[in-house]
Amino acid sequence: MKFLWTVKFMQSDSFVMAFVVYAGFNVTLVTVASLLCVYIGPSAAGSGIPEVKAYLNGVDTPNIFSIKTLFVKILGSIGSVAGGLIVGKEGPLVHVGSCIASILGQGGSVKHGLTCKWLRYLKNDRDRRDLVTCGAAAGVAAAFRAPVGGVLFAMEEVTSWWRGPLLWRAFFTTAVVAVVLRTGIAWCKQGHCGLAGEGGLIIFDVSGVQDNYGLNELVPVVVLGLLGGVLGSLFNQINAKIIMWSGGWLKKKGKFAKIAQAVIVALITSICSFGLPWLAKCRPCPDHLTIPGEKSCPSYGRAGNFKNFHCPDGYYNDLAGLFFNTNEDTVRNLFSKGTNGEFEFSSLFLYLGSAYSLALLTYGIAVPSGLFVPAILCGATYGRIVGMVMGMFYKNGPIDEGVYALLGAASFLGGSMRMTVSLCIILLELTNNLLLLPLIMLVLLISKTVGDCFNDGLYSLHVHIKGIPFLEAHPPRFMSHLTARDAITRPLIWFSKVERVGAIVEVLRSTNHHAFPIVDNDEQSGKPVLFGLVLRSHLLVLLKKKQFLEDRYSYAEKEQSSLVSSAEFAKPGSGKGLTIDDIELTAVEEEMFLDIHEVANTSPYTVVETMSLAKAYTLFRQLGLRHLCVVPRTSEGQPIIGLLTRHDFMSNYLLNLFPHVRQNNYTKIQAFTSSAVGSRL
Amino acid sequence: MKFLWTVKFMQSDSFVMAFVVYAGFNVTLVTVASLLCVYIGPSAAGSGIPEVKAYLNGVDTPNIFSIKTLFVKILGSIGSVAGGLIVGKEGPLVHVGSCIASILGQGGSVKHGLTCKWLRYLKNDRDRRDLVTCGAAAGVAAAFRAPVGGVLFAMEEVTSWWRGPLLWRAFFTTAVVAVVLRTGIAWCKQGHCGLAGEGGLIIFDVSGVQDNYGLNELVPVVVLGLLGGVLGSLFNQINAKIIMWSGGWLKKKGKFAKIAQAVIVALITSICSFGLPWLAKCRPCPDHLTIPGEKSCPSYGRAGNFKNFHCPDGYYNDLAGLFFNTNEDTVRNLFSKGTNGEFEFSSLFLYLGSAYSLALLTYGIAVPSGLFVPAILCGATYGRIVGMVMGMFYKNGPIDEGVYALLGAASFLGGSMRMTVSLCIILLELTNNLLLLPLIMLVLLISKTVGDCFNDGLYSLHVHIKGIPFLEAHPPRFMSHLTARDAITRPLIWFSKVERVGAIVEVLRSTNHHAFPIVDNDEQSGKPVLFGLVLRSHLLVLLKKKQFLEDRYSYAEKEQSSLVSSAEFAKPGSGKGLTIDDIELTAVEEEMFLDIHEVANTSPYTVVETMSLAKAYTLFRQLGLRHLCVVPRTSEGQPIIGLLTRHDFMSNYLLNLFPHVRQNNYTKIQAFTSSAVGSRL
Repeated sequence: MKFLWTVKFMQSDSFVMAFVVYAGFNVTLVTVASLLCVYIGPSAAGSGIPEVKAYLNGVDTPNIFSIKTLFVKILGSIGSVAGGLIVGKEGPLVHVGSCIASILGQGGSVKHGLTCKWLRYLKNDRDRRDLVTCGAAAGVAAAFRAPVGGVLFAMEEVTSWWRGPLLWRAFFTTAVVAVVLRTGIAWCKQGHCGLAGEGGLIIFDVSGVQDNYGLNELVPVVVLGLLGGVLGSLFNQINAKIIMWSGGWLKKKGKFAKIAQAVIVALITSICSFGLPWLAKCRPCPDHLTIPGEKSCPSYGRAGNFKNFHCPDGYYNDLAGLFFNTNEDTVRNLFSKGTNGEFEFSSLFLYLGSAYSLALLTYGIAVPSGLFVPAILCGATYGRIVGMVMGMFYKNGPIDEGVYALLGAASFLGGSMRMTVSLCIILLELTNNLLLLPLIMLVLLISKTVGDCFNDGLYSLHVHIKGIPFLEAHPPRFMSHLTARDAITRPLIWFSKVERVGAIVEVLRSTNHHAFPIVDNDEQSGKPVLFGLVLRSHLLVLLKKKQFLEDRYSYAEKEQSSLVSSAEFAKPGSGKGLTIDDIELTAVEEEMFLDIHEVANTSPYTVVETMSLAKAYTLFRQLGLRHLCVVPRTSEGQPIIGLLTRHDFMSNYLLNLFPHVRQNNYTKIQAFTSSAVGSRL
Repeated sequence: MKFLWTVKFMQSDSFVMAFVVYAGFNVTLVTVASLLCVYIGPSAAGSGIPEVKAYLNGVDTPNIFSIKTLFVKILGSIGSVAGGLIVGKEGPLVHVGSCIASILGQGGSVKHGLTCKWLRYLKNDRDRRDLVTCGAAAGVAAAFRAPVGGVLFAMEEVTSWWRGPLLWRAFFTTAVVAVVLRTGIAWCKQGHCGLAGEGGLIIFDVSGVQDNYGLNELVPVVVLGLLGGVLGSLFNQINAKIIMWSGGWLKKKGKFAKIAQAVIVALITSICSFGLPWLAKCRPCPDHLTIPGEKSCPSYGRAGNFKNFHCPDGYYNDLAGLFFNTNEDTVRNLFSKGTNGEFEFSSLFLYLGSAYSLALLTYGIAVPSGLFVPAILCGATYGRIVGMVMGMFYKNGPIDEGVYALLGAASFLGGSMRMTVSLCIILLELTNNLLLLPLIMLVLLISKTVGDCFNDGLYSLHVHIKGIPFLEAHPPRFMSHLTARDAITRPLIWFSKVERVGAIVEVLRSTNHHAFPIVDNDEQSGKPVLFGLVLRSHLLVLLKKKQFLEDRYSYAEKEQSSLVSSAEFAKPGSGKGLTIDDIELTAVEEEMFLDIHEVANTSPYTVVETMSLAKAYTLFRQLGLRHLCVVPRTSEGQPIIGLLTRHDFMSNYLLNLFPHVRQNNYTKIQAFTSSAVGSRL
């Protein structure tokens, strides 16, 4: 659209007008996107993958899956991609997929009156998490038209707990996506979709290139892998720094600054993509591709390889083919086969530099922005450069520059995101060339290894920047020097099996603990024992029902009447749920008693206080707990010492408490006795 | 080889002689394979995948990864495949891969004097398991030339615990396999390998068929899925019955019967593949494929589609193209595109029937045998039948019969093995046609769902038949009606921190427990507390070292001297390791004391006796434990009630102990309070 208009102005030689139209379009679209993001759905900014990852790790961030976020994400993503920013639609689509899944899982939004009865069976944490995982898989499947890649992406990058049935469900989801996509594309090919109907199931087809690569091709592959690792990890590092720095600055300046930031980035991008192509010389169209008699260069489809820009007929501007184009067409250009020598070194270097810097600036502003496309753009550009260098060494080089571009893209993705199998399959499904698989695998391996030497993957970094209490799969080393007891810092509050209502309300008001142990006296010995664990949310439900007892000992008779249906305890949607302020009690009611033993979890997982914190962490993480009871080693005194929660396992928190463990050496014998001798497999 | 000889005899019209040569070859090869299997490496029979699966679940079966087994598996597999049996080389290759990995992990075989010093760092359970997983992945990658498929196969079907680093390692392994394969193939194409140098990286290439399938194609896809599910689960059922029945019978008859069984099966197979083609009529070669001037039918490569067999020039026998061929070429025949109408209905039905029955008979005899190829053969045959039926309904049907054969193969594999993502990727990598991906996914989904209604996957069934104590990822339902205490049946034996040598030896001789709790008196209260857990193998190492103490209380001073290096406790290879009979002690030594507190695991995982067995199971399985301590709820009496091991969680065992839980209803409120209310995510 905007390109058609701009080209029209350019053909009539009014270049200033063309630029105004072009930049105006871009800035307007980006402004709308960032307005939506800042004022309506702040959670929709960025790619959304770190948030989805954190949710699946067990962190319930408010609003990340609300309908508002979904709405902003979809519109904002359209705005930012159409606005010419160096962003992709892939990350946002993952978030959109997860949003839809989560909203379905909540049984629609209660606030907006869209509920569905049978969906209430999904109202528990685990099923909702499964749904969100499937949604993320579906997002990738739709974005890249890569159904299997979607499953693997969800598995490798997004989810924290993977179960057999989940694999199966995610596979089912993406199979449905694939069939729907296939049908939609077939329908579009019959001309029902207007301009939007381009592209088959394979987005960037590079099949059919010769595959007779030999051992001497290993050199550039290794070079690309190294380059990808270095540039990718550098990208992560700089991006994290920019976001941390601008984050602090923006907080002071408020919402307007965020929008201004987005507008400025959009303007810079427009200037780059319109202005820089003027630096390139007009080049004649390559002879072997020119159709005799045709005046303009051959262009495959509307957005062909060879952009005329301001050049006369029969000439093209190679930089315009990169800058003055949609991101997707630029990628297609870079990947295109049989076009050796299309670009000049200077053009590619210029594009690499500006795309890299723009991508760094863009990821972090207040618009929905994916990272796949920028990474592919940068990677493909230096891939093509390496390919051209190779072509100079080996005359009639055996491999196409387009293939090098693909390998370069793989290396940058691997170096920045640090995925392996899923990237491999996604690239395979994007390009439909199975014969390049060994090379892609090799490039990914090298770039990931190199990248891992410097820093974490981009999504992990963003999870940390956002301050999300994310639990990694393995405990940090220093934890084996601490015991479970060390991590307990908060005072313990417990209830009896039947507790005075006033006391419960008091505790719920004064603390924000999410679970409380119930201590009871053993019938035989009369000593206190740990009866179970009760959740704040369940206490609130009971308080709301007001089925109180007259005195502490009448619960035995009442047992029958106080049964509550399990549906009432179902986890509420992403809304706030019940809070203690919602419950109003009279003074009489506060003096009554509440029987809480029925809603308690009577066998919570426990660890002994002397257990190493690393082992407690493993238990907590592997079983996906929210609360872990720490019991004393000897039986004197109270039957429970404290509760460990997610925040107690955070490294920063623990290292502040125990600064000495940081320097501690990890001696062999200690590691041995604490883990290897253990009864673990 | 044998085909060349046989064909020579047939051309000279001596059919009897030809059959003798053919059958003789086959029977000899199979006999050698089964001799090796029965007398040298009994663990090498079958596909080996169930054994690998069990090992990765934590069951150490003796000898499955020994060098002998490896040797027999490789030679036997060559024998059975070359012997014309309806078996594949894929399953055995997975076992071979795991064997090599395991032997590497053991640091070579100590018995055979092949050790390597730096490999001793791998001498622990977890790293060895990881290695074996990578080996299995490499096996699949090599068998199907499907590197990504290999990783997914290892992940979906073989392994029980999946960790991020493992994905990465498996990916690395298969990437190396892919590069080596690629190089090897390139080398072979230059003619270095003689007859064996055929085939590219894609084994059964079906790329390039038209992909304009529409919604009406969904009908045969659903039909194929249903057929695959029914036939696949029927296959599992019958095969399991045959194995259980013949297993009992063979046990009585001894080793000779096993060899006889293998020979008979080989003979039947030879008779079928030589005899049945005579039933088919000679058909003229299709016109559009015949090269003018050539007399014989066109044949792609040496083992072409159109077998002459006994027919005159210009005619071919379609059954011979199926029967009288190597399995791989038969698959290639069935998958071949552009050959609609090559086979007659009667031929395909006949082949389907005999291949199905032969595969049933063959999987279970004492030779290494894979199941992928038989499944692909059966599936492809009925796939082609469905394709032909479809071709009758839609004249000029849009899809090639070869594509239907591929979908049929997918459906049978899905119906029998019940994998999804990995099969999908393997088939994709086998056939290099990404556009069929949605159809393959759909077929797999349907056939797996249908199959799951009837019985378990084939490998799971075989794990059960072999009586391996396999722990599924989720506890059976009845376990939520039992407590951890219920499952404890064996008497508990414990030690003190310093124990008399004689007592230890006595206990180790009289029991076969693998771990013993250590009970100690608390320093402050004087009450007994659980100090830790010590393993039998570590006790044996200590006894062997003979660093005994004079009396029970001298351990405090000795502390420094009794340090042992962790390497001595390294897990031994697949050999027997130390047993109590290896240790000889004098009477004086038996009266001395042994300080065992240093080698104890001082913080074993514990559960309270009242915890539901289902939750204990989850803990046990998720953390991959071997021993789980059950502690009492109240603090009176002994500090530990018993140890739970893998065998205590076996369903059969528990259901025998508590037959009433089988009928128990699983009421909603119970399920709710025991799991949903819990503090799990």
